[in-house]
Amino acid sequence: MTNNQAVNIEGIGVTAAKGFRAAGVTAGIKASGTPDLALVVNEGPSNAAAGVFTSNRVKAAPVLWSEQVVKGGRISAVVLNSGGANACTGPLGFQDTHATAEKVAAELALNAGEVAVASTGLIGVRLPMDILLPGVEQAAKALAADGGEAAAIAIKTTDTVHKTAQVTKNGWTVGGMAKGAGMLAPGLATMLVVLTTDADVTAEGLDAALRGATNTTFDRIDSDGCMSTNDTVLLLASGASEVVPQQDEFAAAVATVCADLARQLIGDAEGASKDIRIDVTGAATEQEAVQVARVISRNNLLKCALHGEDPNWGRVLAAIGTTDAAFDPDQLNVAINGVWVCQDGSVGESRDLVDMTGREIVITADLRAGESAATVWTNDLTADYVHENSAYST
Amino acid sequence: MTNNQAVNIEGIGVTAAKGFRAAGVTAGIKASGTPDLALVVNEGPSNAAAGVFTSNRVKAAPVLWSEQVVKGGRISAVVLNSGGANACTGPLGFQDTHATAEKVAAELALNAGEVAVASTGLIGVRLPMDILLPGVEQAAKALAADGGEAAAIAIKTTDTVHKTAQVTKNGWTVGGMAKGAGMLAPGLATMLVVLTTDADVTAEGLDAALRGATNTTFDRIDSDGCMSTNDTVLLLASGASEVVPQQDEFAAAVATVCADLARQLIGDAEGASKDIRIDVTGAATEQEAVQVARVISRNNLLKCALHGEDPNWGRVLAAIGTTDAAFDPDQLNVAINGVWVCQDGSVGESRDLVDMTGREIVITADLRAGESAATVWTNDLTADYVHENSAYST
Repeated sequence: MTNNQAVNIEGIGVTAAKGFRAAGVTAGIKASGTPDLALVVNEGPSNAAAGVFTSNRVKAAPVLWSEQVVKGGRISAVVLNSGGANACTGPLGFQDTHATAEKVAAELALNAGEVAVASTGLIGVRLPMDILLPGVEQAAKALAADGGEAAAIAIKTTDTVHKTAQVTKNGWTVGGMAKGAGMLAPGLATMLVVLTTDADVTAEGLDAALRGATNTTFDRIDSDGCMSTNDTVLLLASGASEVVPQQDEFAAAVATVCADLARQLIGDAEGASKDIRIDVTGAATEQEAVQVARVISRNNLLKCALHGEDPNWGRVLAAIGTTDAAFDPDQLNVAINGVWVCQDGSVGESRDLVDMTGREIVITADLRAGESAATVWTNDLTADYVHENSAYST
Repeated sequence: MTNNQAVNIEGIGVTAAKGFRAAGVTAGIKASGTPDLALVVNEGPSNAAAGVFTSNRVKAAPVLWSEQVVKGGRISAVVLNSGGANACTGPLGFQDTHATAEKVAAELALNAGEVAVASTGLIGVRLPMDILLPGVEQAAKALAADGGEAAAIAIKTTDTVHKTAQVTKNGWTVGGMAKGAGMLAPGLATMLVVLTTDADVTAEGLDAALRGATNTTFDRIDSDGCMSTNDTVLLLASGASEVVPQQDEFAAAVATVCADLARQLIGDAEGASKDIRIDVTGAATEQEAVQVARVISRNNLLKCALHGEDPNWGRVLAAIGTTDAAFDPDQLNVAINGVWVCQDGSVGESRDLVDMTGREIVITADLRAGESAATVWTNDLTADYVHENSAYST
């Protein structure tokens, strides 16, 4: 999962594929004065689309809106704002989302029912519509075939870098952008992501590819165990390449872009100093492998230890022991960065052999109960995370 | 839940009740040179006992041992060490626990099968038996009818204060001691706790009282969501008062002592600066109330916000939304320190009205879906927690 691994690409992110224009502007929603409004427009000829959303039952107004849009299988434009999540804002908040979609539709002569909306920022605060709607006009004027980077910049919140990825295959391209630095935990999807492709794929084909990809990428990064109210991942097809790809090949390309973006999200998680890959092997089922990896990824004590470069494998076992996955405690093997510090549930190789000075740490837990495996990515828990999240709304 | 609320008590903690002697000594297991070995002896005439243990499937050797002892319904002595958990130490670790019980039995002319063992400290390291066994001799010599405080001191790890409580009723007393500052999360029981009583109660009566009490006290404190491999709560009866109490009254007294100790544990959680009481009301069932309170208590983002004295109710709703409890997102009400900052799932009273300067914070979440309620206690997440737990084993 390295960035920019594809070649022969003219644009980046959501404008890597043909048939899309994008913009990112400073509407003034954020007090910081940084870009805060992005617009992505699909110029067709197709406007097939798919989306996955947070499984949180407390859903932001833009999620409720965009879920309806996606049900129609068509998206002509996506408008995204940072600076406010428009979550827990009641019927008036939903009206704000609706008004935003209508404004985009009016500016671009589209059907508002095909305009998806995504928002990110503080929960429980109404959006400043008097600022946001003029921002939509501004963004519509700024739309450009190379606007992918500006759009990616405008959706940042606590992200320190903007995130884009793209892959080109046999005459078609999949690209995308993502934001997310906290509240990274699974629930169908996570964070705000817009993917675009110029391949000619039906809404059903997009949906299958997107669900398959998110299941093993965005759903398997878990920075802090907290699930957002606003998570949205959209995939838009323009068909502008006039190529109908093989579904398998297309799905693989979508998965590659999602994996790339997911890795970037983990690499920029709030306050993190370590990116931690948890490989669970020898599980009876993939579901149990994911369960065990997830519970390890959420263990605050372990995450603190890893921050301190302490190969505290006892905390890995204590975490595994809280699951109902198939394993024998006396058979568990755990490696940290390749050193099997726990063998047969007890002391293994010397912890002194473990080099944890790098940013990436790999924990391997072999349950020795089957043939299934899964990987979940997480981060360490740091004082910077605490500082960042104790002062977020002030 | 305030400490020392009972009157007319001569001793404290495990020696508040008649028929017990205790000691706490410095065996030298801890590098710090602070007391690290405690012994509690029941001098009868009864030695009925009950216990509850961690539900973690990775259980420390002393837990495996003491579970067997408790099955017999009789405990004559409990030996506890800090400075090492003796968890994930394999068959040799179990032999160490066995040898410790045998040593206590030999010193005091007891049956080793009636000697419970409890350990706390780092996982995955063998205990220094050449130091521990002489410590048992030392402790046996130091046993005293007023040794409750010394014993409570000797079981501390990262605890900043020792914890004792006691209640006297109609001619009988229940007292106890506890240690625990991290890994405070439920699973039948939590942390190391020894309770004693001079009431004359059968093992079955003790078991019922203990399970009822832990279910609503130790099981409902959740400092960091991490479950230990060593959690042990024991209740020993000497019968020395020669009073057979009413079961209800006895159970209430045990619950009072457990609640007192539980509150002390939360008040001394690692690095915490806030004690947070989460009251969930209006739940369809008590189980759902506990589920919702638990998920709120484990939300790192919320715990950071509370540390920063930020009444970030959006994070409460985002947490509630991850449960499958009965509620309508548009009906949720949330108060922080009595101010209903969220009403009908949306913005309520002004967050500026919330005073969070005190150590104790009360979050009330009214699901408006039924008549059941539950309370879970937790702490804020602080940079001090990170520091303490990133350097624990070094």
